[in-house]
Amino acid sequence: MPTPLLTQSTPASGEPPAPEAARPTHLREANCRALLRLLRKSSPCSKADLVRSSGLSAPTVAAAIAQLAECGLVEPIGEGKSSGGRPPDLLQFNASHAYVAGADIGGTYLRMMLADLHGQTVATWEARLGAGRKTPSAVVSLLREGLKAMAESANAVGRVRHITVGAPGITDVRNGVVKAAPNLQDWNDVPLQSLLESGLGIDATVENDVNLAAVGERARGIAHDARDFVFIAMGTGVGAGIYVEGSLHHGATWSAGEIGYLPVAGMPRETMRLEQTGQLERVIGGAGIEDAWSEALQREGIIEGPLPKLRASQIFDLAGEPTADSHQLAMEIVGTTARILADAIGILGLLYDPKLVVLGGGVGSHGVLRATTEIFLQENELAQPLLRTSSLGKQAQLFGAISLSLAAIEAGLLC
Amino acid sequence: MPTPLLTQSTPASGEPPAPEAARPTHLREANCRALLRLLRKSSPCSKADLVRSSGLSAPTVAAAIAQLAECGLVEPIGEGKSSGGRPPDLLQFNASHAYVAGADIGGTYLRMMLADLHGQTVATWEARLGAGRKTPSAVVSLLREGLKAMAESANAVGRVRHITVGAPGITDVRNGVVKAAPNLQDWNDVPLQSLLESGLGIDATVENDVNLAAVGERARGIAHDARDFVFIAMGTGVGAGIYVEGSLHHGATWSAGEIGYLPVAGMPRETMRLEQTGQLERVIGGAGIEDAWSEALQREGIIEGPLPKLRASQIFDLAGEPTADSHQLAMEIVGTTARILADAIGILGLLYDPKLVVLGGGVGSHGVLRATTEIFLQENELAQPLLRTSSLGKQAQLFGAISLSLAAIEAGLLC
Repeated sequence: MPTPLLTQSTPASGEPPAPEAARPTHLREANCRALLRLLRKSSPCSKADLVRSSGLSAPTVAAAIAQLAECGLVEPIGEGKSSGGRPPDLLQFNASHAYVAGADIGGTYLRMMLADLHGQTVATWEARLGAGRKTPSAVVSLLREGLKAMAESANAVGRVRHITVGAPGITDVRNGVVKAAPNLQDWNDVPLQSLLESGLGIDATVENDVNLAAVGERARGIAHDARDFVFIAMGTGVGAGIYVEGSLHHGATWSAGEIGYLPVAGMPRETMRLEQTGQLERVIGGAGIEDAWSEALQREGIIEGPLPKLRASQIFDLAGEPTADSHQLAMEIVGTTARILADAIGILGLLYDPKLVVLGGGVGSHGVLRATTEIFLQENELAQPLLRTSSLGKQAQLFGAISLSLAAIEAGLLC
Repeated sequence: MPTPLLTQSTPASGEPPAPEAARPTHLREANCRALLRLLRKSSPCSKADLVRSSGLSAPTVAAAIAQLAECGLVEPIGEGKSSGGRPPDLLQFNASHAYVAGADIGGTYLRMMLADLHGQTVATWEARLGAGRKTPSAVVSLLREGLKAMAESANAVGRVRHITVGAPGITDVRNGVVKAAPNLQDWNDVPLQSLLESGLGIDATVENDVNLAAVGERARGIAHDARDFVFIAMGTGVGAGIYVEGSLHHGATWSAGEIGYLPVAGMPRETMRLEQTGQLERVIGGAGIEDAWSEALQREGIIEGPLPKLRASQIFDLAGEPTADSHQLAMEIVGTTARILADAIGILGLLYDPKLVVLGGGVGSHGVLRATTEIFLQENELAQPLLRTSSLGKQAQLFGAISLSLAAIEAGLLC
């Protein structure tokens, strides 16, 4: 059954509805937007296809298509296949009419992506964030460099409309300010959005990096369309992105999901300080896992060779290889980490009781971690969420950023 | 400026809007409901007042008032004061047209309230839940007895339309089932809603008792109209009711807010079992506080007299009286409790980052607890919520229940 796409905006409670006279314009725009979404999904297609799938009248569709063509968003691409009569003229959504960018400021790397209006990746770029390159101005310079390189390689110069940047810290999305990011350098109350807009010359959105990964997993990954779920990132840092009723939950001071500060059972009570990493992060973040590994190796008398140099994700790789010599030792580390992670998920369960928890990040994405954590979780009788591993891996943040950028420009696409 | 009350229902995304032909009826109903709300607020008032404050036309208001009068919801009450011309006919909202009930099943008492359509209390009733009176069927019998007594005393027999009952346990609101309530007797997967509807002969809603208190504090108490806040109840049990974006957050398995199971710093890791009380509840629930008090008294050599017999809330009363002999000892107990409560609120802050936390319940409502907890909370640099004491005390649950009952019958009031 076709779903009519006619929509009408609902005034927020207490606000008067738009006056009668404003409605036709408003409806025309709503129809345009709805048809654009439809075209984006089913392009190439004919006008008749759009009439059928939109439930709108043929003249309405024709008028909207004319407007979309005028804006450069739709192009005729010749005749389609005939089903008897005259072959229909096919329309194509012009995905290269504009482009959007996404970036993820990590502790060690800056990674960027450029995508067309389909959300299709057309270029990527990355740079190492060495010492001295982690200040706000250094990062903005790198972002400018990366954006220029991507736009040139994709033949998109002058058509990049928006960038969304993920920061590894507490981020005030409304005012575009990174409040604290202890893994970077001099990132306290940085007005990143305005730095980006003046430095890059395009509109910008800033968001916490883990929240972006949650957006990405929901838009294109394992949490597809989930209304309530928690994304847990474990890498250098440990944090969570939380969806409640289909919306990201940011909290009153943009700190919702800062699970890196959760207490760890058996450890002494600790005061939470913004400029310090939290207890949970110190234990099951990358550095904590590497410390536990060193201790285990020393206990076994292994102090030379390649093993002591392994990074957290490599230790977890070893745990996933039952034939490896040090598999048992690595499994022990996974077990300790999973036990503590399960406790944290137990706490999340008591407070949010989410249906789904997605594990991601460089360390968290290991399947062996999910399997072990699940065993510990099953001991609890309350609030057992489904546990899944990120399907997008490192791309989750960037896909999330592209998704937010596309949403940000949607309204402005119609000329 | 008058706010036009004309509202139009928004179809859920994907659903087709109502067909054109259905609209006039629909609008008429919406106008009736809007005028009813207005009348409820400003009664007594004249038709002219309603025209002014609704922004609707005089004939529309007249038609709606006629329908409301036919349903028995509005009564003319004679002439008002003239401001020059003919004195206007005054209309009054008939709040005693129907009644709603609320009930709170506690660990020791069953308390009930009957209210008119203004939400004004017209009767209350309570009964002790001794041993043997805590089973589902015993409680439903008591509820029937209480409802009958209240209806008779308020001259409301035959006009009670709905009851909302709060249960001290995990409650599946959608299916009306109490999944577990360890402080009662034989309450596992009890279909309370249908037991109530068949036993009492009226529509019923069931909800977790702490959630009801949160609803009450938001409707009439200290959390007035807050969109994001957490209500923490401390009494026999310890639990939280959580509002996110103006809605109660229940969670995927109705367990959101079961903070009684949170871990306590320095205590061994514990598996969460439905039929057992949780770690936090065992330490800062009433019994835990009384245990700590006994230990402190024994340490001081006080083993006789009235002090060892004090209940948790009496110990907190002592702490609030600086002239009392045992004030210092009681303050010590408050300090220990506040420290652990502040840790729990710290965890809530990391996950929800609420603007406001309201402390309620028999033990939690003590001002001295709030003041001490606030001191500990201020040590943290992350997610510091505003801390307030419940303004409704024991009434919070019942006011919440009345509020949900009124909302439940609203649509059905128009005949």
